[in-house]
Amino acid sequence: VQDVEFDADAVAKGGFPHFMLKEIFEQPEVLRNTMRGRLLTAEGNAKLAGLDTNIKELRNINRIIITACGTSYYAGMVGEYMIEDLAGVPVEVEYASEFRYRNPIIKPGTLVIAISQSGETADTLAALREAQQKGATALAICNGVGSTIARTSDGGVYLHAGPEIGVASTKAFTSQVTVLAMIALLLGRQRRLSFETGADIVKDLLELPDLVTETLKLSDSIAEIAKTLCKANNFLYLGRHFCYPVAMEGALKLKEISYIHAEGYPAAEMKHGPIALIDENMPVVVIAPKDSLFDKIISNIREIKARGGKVIAVTTEDCHPLDEIADHIITVPKTRPMLMPILACIPLQLLAYHIAVLRGNDVDQPRNLAKSVTVE
Amino acid sequence: VQDVEFDADAVAKGGFPHFMLKEIFEQPEVLRNTMRGRLLTAEGNAKLAGLDTNIKELRNINRIIITACGTSYYAGMVGEYMIEDLAGVPVEVEYASEFRYRNPIIKPGTLVIAISQSGETADTLAALREAQQKGATALAICNGVGSTIARTSDGGVYLHAGPEIGVASTKAFTSQVTVLAMIALLLGRQRRLSFETGADIVKDLLELPDLVTETLKLSDSIAEIAKTLCKANNFLYLGRHFCYPVAMEGALKLKEISYIHAEGYPAAEMKHGPIALIDENMPVVVIAPKDSLFDKIISNIREIKARGGKVIAVTTEDCHPLDEIADHIITVPKTRPMLMPILACIPLQLLAYHIAVLRGNDVDQPRNLAKSVTVE
Repeated sequence: VQDVEFDADAVAKGGFPHFMLKEIFEQPEVLRNTMRGRLLTAEGNAKLAGLDTNIKELRNINRIIITACGTSYYAGMVGEYMIEDLAGVPVEVEYASEFRYRNPIIKPGTLVIAISQSGETADTLAALREAQQKGATALAICNGVGSTIARTSDGGVYLHAGPEIGVASTKAFTSQVTVLAMIALLLGRQRRLSFETGADIVKDLLELPDLVTETLKLSDSIAEIAKTLCKANNFLYLGRHFCYPVAMEGALKLKEISYIHAEGYPAAEMKHGPIALIDENMPVVVIAPKDSLFDKIISNIREIKARGGKVIAVTTEDCHPLDEIADHIITVPKTRPMLMPILACIPLQLLAYHIAVLRGNDVDQPRNLAKSVTVE
Repeated sequence: VQDVEFDADAVAKGGFPHFMLKEIFEQPEVLRNTMRGRLLTAEGNAKLAGLDTNIKELRNINRIIITACGTSYYAGMVGEYMIEDLAGVPVEVEYASEFRYRNPIIKPGTLVIAISQSGETADTLAALREAQQKGATALAICNGVGSTIARTSDGGVYLHAGPEIGVASTKAFTSQVTVLAMIALLLGRQRRLSFETGADIVKDLLELPDLVTETLKLSDSIAEIAKTLCKANNFLYLGRHFCYPVAMEGALKLKEISYIHAEGYPAAEMKHGPIALIDENMPVVVIAPKDSLFDKIISNIREIKARGGKVIAVTTEDCHPLDEIADHIITVPKTRPMLMPILACIPLQLLAYHIAVLRGNDVDQPRNLAKSVTVE
């Protein structure tokens, strides 16, 4: 008889040193699970069973309030841009803690969508109840099956992302954005979105998991970049349009696990204040995919370089002249602009992870933070 | 004949060492000018001549988009809360640089309000034109009389704040919030707001200049507090409800002239990430007036103290138990919650000013910044 050493923790981590890294690498499979059975290629549409009872009502919705906290809030910001773009319905995103305590304006035709990974976030649950109290239909986007928020809502969509153990949310963010893309598609197809564009979006969604796999191959080169940045005490993250919320989320990741003061901003706002902070000690991460705003963001980057700042650019191929200006280039695959957040956030998850490991932090259990905030 | 030494610059500064301090101390007079002839005590209403041609249309507005950059954006956030509260019209606030480049949703009944101190901000002007192009009525809130934004708009309200020379905006912010309060009052009185409440708001507005004078007496004690904080390299600013935008604006002031990385947050969001940053090296400025959310914010402050953080509280009288928990207490006069931003922002202007002076910075001409950003 021979004793076999068995480390339950290591098994649970599937060979990865931390749950967070495991969960980052699970994302291709998670996105497949999030989309499974929910996309109708032949109709250029999404079918979300949890919204079936609300489907007629959704056609008459004329305003949407998305409410959430933390990472889920930033996913909601991407959702705002996607829904306004595809469906033409005005969307506001509100911090749940603020929404619940002021007198929110709910009128006939107002839909509220609450987003929470755990489904137990106290502020988000209270916001959902406040919205229902005022007569709104309130949907939930949750990962926790049978969670309080899921049970309290009038309908909703599960992430099917599997348990998320790392305190810093990763796979929940990308699957939340994927669910919001499917909701935007559904609302769009009820309104002005053509079959043709709908079918293109379905095709692009279905290609995402493979593109995420491609993106994850960047991990080693990002670890190298992390070595040059891990001593910095302040970061700025900049993005525009669909990738502005990615800048916010990337900064939050670095805050959470590296304890580095990182702040996200819409790129063009930099010149209204934050540019005063720029010097050689403040690296700036810029999300700059090759799209219609590329030239604008190049000019923002030139301003940073002119002030001695160090620029890490997350971009797509053919990014010239960015390759000559930025200090580090991280190239992710290309997809349609509304889905870029899903690919662009992954290098930022990896960057935060590698920097935190290099700083010797407890990545899965960062100081002061709880996985789900069930108190106010 | 005797030569008299004459320093034109010193005269222009009216005896103050910097334009910024002069402009901070001008605020009582500025607010009087902003309100002069615009408040109708007997009707509990505001009369804004620049909106006269739009007055009937304003009654039918069902959605408002406020667009701006920098400090004007934070004034707009206060405006959102005030208008939603008094008039029940849903308001969104959008960065002008984002608004102009995405396809904004403008429907019949959508009003756009552009805010810019100079009236020449390139992004805000482009956003205003984009809104008009889509059929929206677009109003302007400007200080620059005859400025491009003022001339392009379909109506609007001047601040009458006098020239603002300091690059970091101070008196423009408080007068912008005052104008937005008058617009909220006007829209409210066209809708659900009673004469009685309207008259109370007029009374409270008219009392503000004296309360600002009272608040300015704090300058010396804030200079003392600044001495204990001027070596910190990172700050957090927290507020809730009407004072959440004040936290954002306070942090922007510190960024602009002290080059300290300061970030504003809605207080309850702290536990969803930023609390990981808290230690003895990161002072936290909390705006905590004695209002319905006072107990909630006290519990946020206890969390900060439990992690070794240093707390500077801006509060109102009778703030017990805050006086026992916070490291520094700054007590401002009390007014109704919607007008608290005007009083609560002043200590933050003074704090940023005194810290910047102690650090030896050029307060009126901070590095990298222009007074009005007339390029993209």
